[in-house]
Amino acid sequence: MSAAPLEPQRALLADGRELVLYEDTPRPPRRVGDARTLPARAAASEIRYDDVHDEYVIVAAHRQGRTHLPVSEDCPLCPTRPGHPTEIPTDDYGVAVFENRFPALGPYDLAADSGDHPAGGRCEVVCFSSDHTKRLFEFDRIRLQTVGRVWADRVAELSARGDVAYVFVFENSGRDIGITLEHPHGQIYGYPFVPPRVRQATETARRWRERRGGCLFCHVVAAEVATGERVVHASERFVAFVPYAARWPYEVHVYPRRHVADLTELTSVERDEAMEIYADVLRRFDQLFVEETAYIAAWHQAPVREDRDVAHLRLQVFTIRRAPGKLKYLAGSESALGAFVNDVVPEDAAARLRAAGSE
Amino acid sequence: MSAAPLEPQRALLADGRELVLYEDTPRPPRRVGDARTLPARAAASEIRYDDVHDEYVIVAAHRQGRTHLPVSEDCPLCPTRPGHPTEIPTDDYGVAVFENRFPALGPYDLAADSGDHPAGGRCEVVCFSSDHTKRLFEFDRIRLQTVGRVWADRVAELSARGDVAYVFVFENSGRDIGITLEHPHGQIYGYPFVPPRVRQATETARRWRERRGGCLFCHVVAAEVATGERVVHASERFVAFVPYAARWPYEVHVYPRRHVADLTELTSVERDEAMEIYADVLRRFDQLFVEETAYIAAWHQAPVREDRDVAHLRLQVFTIRRAPGKLKYLAGSESALGAFVNDVVPEDAAARLRAAGSE
Repeated sequence: MSAAPLEPQRALLADGRELVLYEDTPRPPRRVGDARTLPARAAASEIRYDDVHDEYVIVAAHRQGRTHLPVSEDCPLCPTRPGHPTEIPTDDYGVAVFENRFPALGPYDLAADSGDHPAGGRCEVVCFSSDHTKRLFEFDRIRLQTVGRVWADRVAELSARGDVAYVFVFENSGRDIGITLEHPHGQIYGYPFVPPRVRQATETARRWRERRGGCLFCHVVAAEVATGERVVHASERFVAFVPYAARWPYEVHVYPRRHVADLTELTSVERDEAMEIYADVLRRFDQLFVEETAYIAAWHQAPVREDRDVAHLRLQVFTIRRAPGKLKYLAGSESALGAFVNDVVPEDAAARLRAAGSE
Repeated sequence: MSAAPLEPQRALLADGRELVLYEDTPRPPRRVGDARTLPARAAASEIRYDDVHDEYVIVAAHRQGRTHLPVSEDCPLCPTRPGHPTEIPTDDYGVAVFENRFPALGPYDLAADSGDHPAGGRCEVVCFSSDHTKRLFEFDRIRLQTVGRVWADRVAELSARGDVAYVFVFENSGRDIGITLEHPHGQIYGYPFVPPRVRQATETARRWRERRGGCLFCHVVAAEVATGERVVHASERFVAFVPYAARWPYEVHVYPRRHVADLTELTSVERDEAMEIYADVLRRFDQLFVEETAYIAAWHQAPVREDRDVAHLRLQVFTIRRAPGKLKYLAGSESALGAFVNDVVPEDAAARLRAAGSE
């Protein structure tokens, strides 16, 4: 059974950014008070159109000064302690969401909006726990369910904003991929445009529907289940597999078997099962190497207001580690031409990930 | 004056791979003899179609065992010395080109070609000098001209192959981007398909031509020259600028002012000037930071047999270093969604690169 929806607790940080607190079970409101003096916020990023590739690029120069791997004493995602103010001015919390102080997108500034480019958007940080040391897949089932509920709530809330065209729920985890904070957290970007890869996949799915009928993604899932050779884990409502044309050494896609467009369309039972398989995949990644396996976990959802009929929710998890001590770098072929060279055969990656789960 | 075209010297390595030697000035043939015993080659990579993104991905598992940062004693790109066999079995060379022993593409195997996927292709290594320690921009004008001539020769030769649809001339330079060999060298990939970013740019250029007439790229060059705020260096026949929507912290595009499709269409005078501006841009990159500036340099050319009417030759040079001691990592937004967040304003990057040239 999933926990009933709970009303989150809302507050503002010293510079006006929103803080939203969620708990596993009902409890009295927490005492929240941000005693810091913070500079006023301003719209600091710019969205530029690249006319050679027909894509938008975000220029966000103010992020150069962002906090970079502080010692755990100074972690800005831990609860506030006397003498140690943080981004979360309470003495404890369950799951905390707040607007990023160094956002790639937003805040929206009506005065600066010329109307000819997308503007605004929103970047949120999601702290999975007040415990600095745990990783997401180490939390108990209740907390995982709360995180899933928070994600769905945030997607619904950001989707209602006029300056958000796409909501991206993701995790960058591990030093190898350049994280700047170690506290267990994910991020949510609300883009004021539909990102290039999303547009590409929905266009491909639309062409598929026009030519062959039905959902491209449902077809992919059925084909993977049928061969089974790349399936890593299958549960009642979800299937996790290494895609046939994986770009990364270890890459897993998790699809709901039911055709749904985004996280808000999952039933609470489905969402809870999604979190179980999410944690299962991350545990398998963690067991691949002796060193910590840095990973990126990305929820691909339907755009907020277009192409919802052809999109199909899926989770993409991948690591840039290709072997112990060796990383997969994006060099000329990948970075300049978009032609990926994968050093691990997808069927081999699937076999290793299956084995990692049986330990 | 450009050097007259010279006939290269051709030989085979022990496993049948081709070696082609070029010199700055005419000289008697070199003694070439590969005394190594090498395992036979086999088509070892596979090209897979990703039906979600309508793109090809290269799976090349055999590359996992490739030589990784050997000590300079064991450099496989240095000339062969007694007791130290290398990939170049001569006692010296000018510029040496050979087929990669651990190729992402090729060799083409007719028996394994099912005909339903692109197959074959070719990966070449281009050693700019027998001198292990120099970097490309440190060579004298004569050698730079020879390198330009070698590139044009190789593009012409690979373009004539039936299993090559696109020729990519590029350099990955610097440990930060994961190079596996330090000897000054570039690479050439002959893809049996048109890579995704190339297809995207030619499609955009075709739409531009249909809607507005003329060449999109010529328009971009004219617009950059007109504002001048992002121009890094302009010569008689070339313009180097930071693109308006740059994806990388420091990124420069170099265009010939004349509309040409690829390196083979440059006159020798243009080619020599291209090499000067190439070295000039790399020198500016080198001066940006106290540490070595790792860079990727990528020649974007027209596909071999399609879209040649809308393509326009250009060089893209970029670094992943965003500040001293800090790299630009591709995290969730870039890797999963293709939405780049650039931490450096393009006009600021251009100003710094202009200043770097005046030292």
